[in-house]
Amino acid sequence: MKIIPGPSSTELGRKIAEILGVETVSVAHKKFPDGESYIRLESEVAGEEVAIVQSTGPPQDTNLIQLFILADAAKDLGAKRVIAVVPYLAYARQDKRFLPGEAISIQTIGKLLKASGIDELITVNIHQEKVLEKFEIPAKNLSAAGLLASYFKSKGLESAFASAPDEGRTEFVMEASKVLGGGYGWLHKERDLYTGEIRTEERTLDVSGKDVIIFDDIISTGGTMANAVKIFKEQGARRVFAACVHPLMIGNAKEKILQNGAEEIVGTDSVPSNVTVVSLAPLIAEELARRIKG
Amino acid sequence: MKIIPGPSSTELGRKIAEILGVETVSVAHKKFPDGESYIRLESEVAGEEVAIVQSTGPPQDTNLIQLFILADAAKDLGAKRVIAVVPYLAYARQDKRFLPGEAISIQTIGKLLKASGIDELITVNIHQEKVLEKFEIPAKNLSAAGLLASYFKSKGLESAFASAPDEGRTEFVMEASKVLGGGYGWLHKERDLYTGEIRTEERTLDVSGKDVIIFDDIISTGGTMANAVKIFKEQGARRVFAACVHPLMIGNAKEKILQNGAEEIVGTDSVPSNVTVVSLAPLIAEELARRIKG
Repeated sequence: MKIIPGPSSTELGRKIAEILGVETVSVAHKKFPDGESYIRLESEVAGEEVAIVQSTGPPQDTNLIQLFILADAAKDLGAKRVIAVVPYLAYARQDKRFLPGEAISIQTIGKLLKASGIDELITVNIHQEKVLEKFEIPAKNLSAAGLLASYFKSKGLESAFASAPDEGRTEFVMEASKVLGGGYGWLHKERDLYTGEIRTEERTLDVSGKDVIIFDDIISTGGTMANAVKIFKEQGARRVFAACVHPLMIGNAKEKILQNGAEEIVGTDSVPSNVTVVSLAPLIAEELARRIKG
Repeated sequence: MKIIPGPSSTELGRKIAEILGVETVSVAHKKFPDGESYIRLESEVAGEEVAIVQSTGPPQDTNLIQLFILADAAKDLGAKRVIAVVPYLAYARQDKRFLPGEAISIQTIGKLLKASGIDELITVNIHQEKVLEKFEIPAKNLSAAGLLASYFKSKGLESAFASAPDEGRTEFVMEASKVLGGGYGWLHKERDLYTGEIRTEERTLDVSGKDVIIFDDIISTGGTMANAVKIFKEQGARRVFAACVHPLMIGNAKEKILQNGAEEIVGTDSVPSNVTVVSLAPLIAEELARRIKG
């Protein structure tokens, strides 16, 4: 197996290759003055199984098109099998038709992944795992819950209460709690379908005097996480930490969350960010190692 | 047939529908704070043949992803047949492997068009028509040469000399010359494969005292066109006009061309621009009308 670190995930790709002890195929990449991406593979892929590491956080569309071009080029240059490692999969939250006529964009992305020659997808904590069932290529969804929880444990927070801002992350929280051991629970969130406005219900959880870690898959504009931090602080939590897999951190997300009383914000290197970073490299390398062995 | 004016070509789409006298399907479109596009078709497409009008000039990647999502949504909502009208097709200039390992990006785009449910492509003056032969869907390449030449004729330039900055547009120039009638010819251009630097050879053409119109498919950063204007002025042309189908006009392209002595720059509405605009609507409507009739 060779690793192709895509333009959006060069460092993560190189870390994965290092753990696995396999070769990387460097990608020469530039943007033409008009904005088109130029892509060139700098070494051979003919006859190889390759894993392209290319996350698709902002700018999502450019990162997606680069992934499609890379995969198709690898196949065109003779690669035997192409695995796409896409820790953050763009458009995954557009997974339902809430209003008539709405595009279910993640279904389109699934079709494009296949058409560009990708044989298998590996992603991390996709918003709803069941969207992958409709993909026409095998797709594996890894969880960074243990990785994030271990980070907090290593910082002395082994008895922290594991929580989430809504019911969408119950499994994630239970997984994190197995590492942390300080109990778990979650708040309740409602979203207005037209305005997109979010209301977090002040469901009472027994967190008085405890350290609380709030886990979510994505921090986007930070509103949901900031609300949750505020609620836990009001319910008497000692220290509150914010953790997520995909720290998009749009606009002043960081400031919002810290101003509401969070001690620290932790995310992974699935996307570039301005928070404390725990690398996904060991998690992804472990999964790829299974494919190398057999 | 119903016309779906995509977010990048709303006005052009509406003009085409007006000429044809057919209904439009409005597209509700917004960007989420993280940069993802949201797409909703505001009226029914079930059982219909639809033509999505969505050009893919800058930002190319976003316009492409919107096109894929729109086409797939139309099919998912029951459209019988989807025609994509993409006057400017992004990545069409990346059509050859100049250096080992280079991606032939337009081939990837062809695969993605098919995968998103598009049954037929209509484009305008694609850089090299032969790239369409490799597409797995039927593709029609229209020429705006007559349309642009007619504009100049209507302005009193009926005996202007039709020319091009290189040998790539010979057919275009001959077509324009049929409308104009003042003779034709072209310069010679060389591009360094590594640096991308362009050198235009000062091939002598008999333009002394004549009005010259330089036609090209694309004006990108304007270097090629500006060089050509300069050469024709030096060879004694009376007035020199710059015309193109796709006026990308990156950076100070307009200023460069005007400073070298062009009287006017004319382009089509294939992409938004800061030059004189001739609409493609009649050309595209004529082509779609053939499909409505039979």
